[in-house]
Amino acid sequence: MGTNDNFYALIMAGGGGTRLWPMSRQARPKQVLPLVGERTMFEIAVARLEPLFPPERILVVTVGSMAAELRAQAPDLPPENIIVEPVGRNTAPAIGLGALHVGARDPAAIMVVLTADHYIADTEKFRGVLAAARDVAAEGHIVTLGITPDHPSTGYGYIETGAAKGAVGGFEVFEVTAFVEKPDLATAQVYLDGGRHSWNSGMFVWRVERLMAEFERQQPAMLRHLERVGAALGSDAYEATLAETWPRIERISVDYAIMEGAEDVRVIPLDIGWNDVGSWAALLEVNEADAQGNVVLGKEPLCLDTHNTLIASNKLVATIGLEDIVIIDTDDALLVCKREHAQNVRELVERLKNDNRERYL
Amino acid sequence: MGTNDNFYALIMAGGGGTRLWPMSRQARPKQVLPLVGERTMFEIAVARLEPLFPPERILVVTVGSMAAELRAQAPDLPPENIIVEPVGRNTAPAIGLGALHVGARDPAAIMVVLTADHYIADTEKFRGVLAAARDVAAEGHIVTLGITPDHPSTGYGYIETGAAKGAVGGFEVFEVTAFVEKPDLATAQVYLDGGRHSWNSGMFVWRVERLMAEFERQQPAMLRHLERVGAALGSDAYEATLAETWPRIERISVDYAIMEGAEDVRVIPLDIGWNDVGSWAALLEVNEADAQGNVVLGKEPLCLDTHNTLIASNKLVATIGLEDIVIIDTDDALLVCKREHAQNVRELVERLKNDNRERYL
Repeated sequence: MGTNDNFYALIMAGGGGTRLWPMSRQARPKQVLPLVGERTMFEIAVARLEPLFPPERILVVTVGSMAAELRAQAPDLPPENIIVEPVGRNTAPAIGLGALHVGARDPAAIMVVLTADHYIADTEKFRGVLAAARDVAAEGHIVTLGITPDHPSTGYGYIETGAAKGAVGGFEVFEVTAFVEKPDLATAQVYLDGGRHSWNSGMFVWRVERLMAEFERQQPAMLRHLERVGAALGSDAYEATLAETWPRIERISVDYAIMEGAEDVRVIPLDIGWNDVGSWAALLEVNEADAQGNVVLGKEPLCLDTHNTLIASNKLVATIGLEDIVIIDTDDALLVCKREHAQNVRELVERLKNDNRERYL
Repeated sequence: MGTNDNFYALIMAGGGGTRLWPMSRQARPKQVLPLVGERTMFEIAVARLEPLFPPERILVVTVGSMAAELRAQAPDLPPENIIVEPVGRNTAPAIGLGALHVGARDPAAIMVVLTADHYIADTEKFRGVLAAARDVAAEGHIVTLGITPDHPSTGYGYIETGAAKGAVGGFEVFEVTAFVEKPDLATAQVYLDGGRHSWNSGMFVWRVERLMAEFERQQPAMLRHLERVGAALGSDAYEATLAETWPRIERISVDYAIMEGAEDVRVIPLDIGWNDVGSWAALLEVNEADAQGNVVLGKEPLCLDTHNTLIASNKLVATIGLEDIVIIDTDDALLVCKREHAQNVRELVERLKNDNRERYL
């Protein structure tokens, strides 16, 4: 096992989304909501890094509108570890900015990029794989954490695995032969049956040096922007330089910008109870249910003959005779939805946009 | 047809109830709520009497806590026509009090007793039967309006009809042979199959003189109390006399106190689209539904793939994939209920009482 002193975590916490409308809103996205138990997704994302990472080596990238909320939710992190983008530019610039900060602290740093709004059931195994991935990355590889599929999902990109490269820390490591975009259902079924594909979870581990070399090779224009910001890091000119540079930087995901064109990539396929909490139905999976299969967020409801139902409200909710229903009550909007239609919330959101009812988004 | 100048309507509007919880509360019962279209049940109960009754001959009996609300909802009625009981004592005293007021205005009055919280689809036919019942009552009979059953309900008392007594104003009139209490299901089925029973709707027509004679014969103690109040009517002593008398008067329904022991009672069986709006499921029957069978009270919702569902809320409600669901959203409580379980709301209310959560009632 390698040393841990140069191992940094970068949590990506700037994204928005409306798949969990009406609780998640543009100004209050999924990661700051208490969706699993009483802690927010972001609080959980920070907490599960202990004891592998001390607070000093946990950094967060977010946007200005959310910085105060995230600082409040992670009071143990040094305030300067919350890195604020002037505007969101997708994941490649955000990760580049995080890498500048990490690299300034330790040029030999190894950095894991993590998400703030995904659920992981087996946190101990998760930390184990992070340590293993660190050791693989220490050798110079780019490591991606793949999720072993349990159904033919069309909602994720897939990682195609090649030759086995042995085990590290108890986890099998494979060569990556391709990153593939979200497939159609038939293709997803082929991937599932073949056993050679993992879901792309958006979690990566690399030396900062190696990442910067990939930027140089694949995204030289973006690297020039990043270098300008990096030169101002620690000086009074930092904020202004960032504010001036950021709107000019290309909006692009790290998958397109770096991963698809990278060589010498490794994947560690994982079965850690990962869930991207992509719809309200997922909350019934990741939360502990009561004896009737019901999951409650917020005030305790009064339920008669009600099963496998999700109830989130700050007021008294009473239910009778419900099965597989999602009830999400907020101050200005209420969603009642059949569990298997939960993914259609995005259609509701589209309708609200088209109806000029953006105030609800 | 008889003259109409001495024909008075008395609307009973003092009752409470929680079958429509959480919208109906102890302080805000069914009759003051807009449950059918945009008008309240009480507003509808007053409006459907026009043009048979001018406002001067429409009286209302209620309790103090509701008087202001009812006056506001019926601005055309003379304020003194809202008769206020100091405390509710069930229907016999309330009707006796109303009869005192009506009799003081016209000793030869004929009075119809009506409910404030029931729905009637065919209001023209309803007014027709009231005129017919007036003519039967003018001859000295007590007339009760029966509802022709369309299912073996165990929720109503039944009126057993005897010999036909001819038609008046196009409506068949029958002798009443018995008032029977709410039956069990088997008995209700026998009643339905036999075709000789009507539901007791709580609507009665009689001469005030005849009613008072029945009080004298069957309820002499109550009549003494009523006479004391009657003697003070129109004087400064009225309020004090009423306040002193009312707590001493027996709590008893007019069915037990008068109807069951009355002789020479007539019934007119009616098919007028009557509905006592006894549960949320009834709202789906009495309101006009949209093309998907949904009924909306309050703010217009956003519904995807939703059918035969009742939605009442002042905020944005969004639904997906629902069928036969009742959604009643209020400031402090939300009910979501399968349509066929709507009558179990009373069980919810019991639970709230037992849990010391009366603040929700």
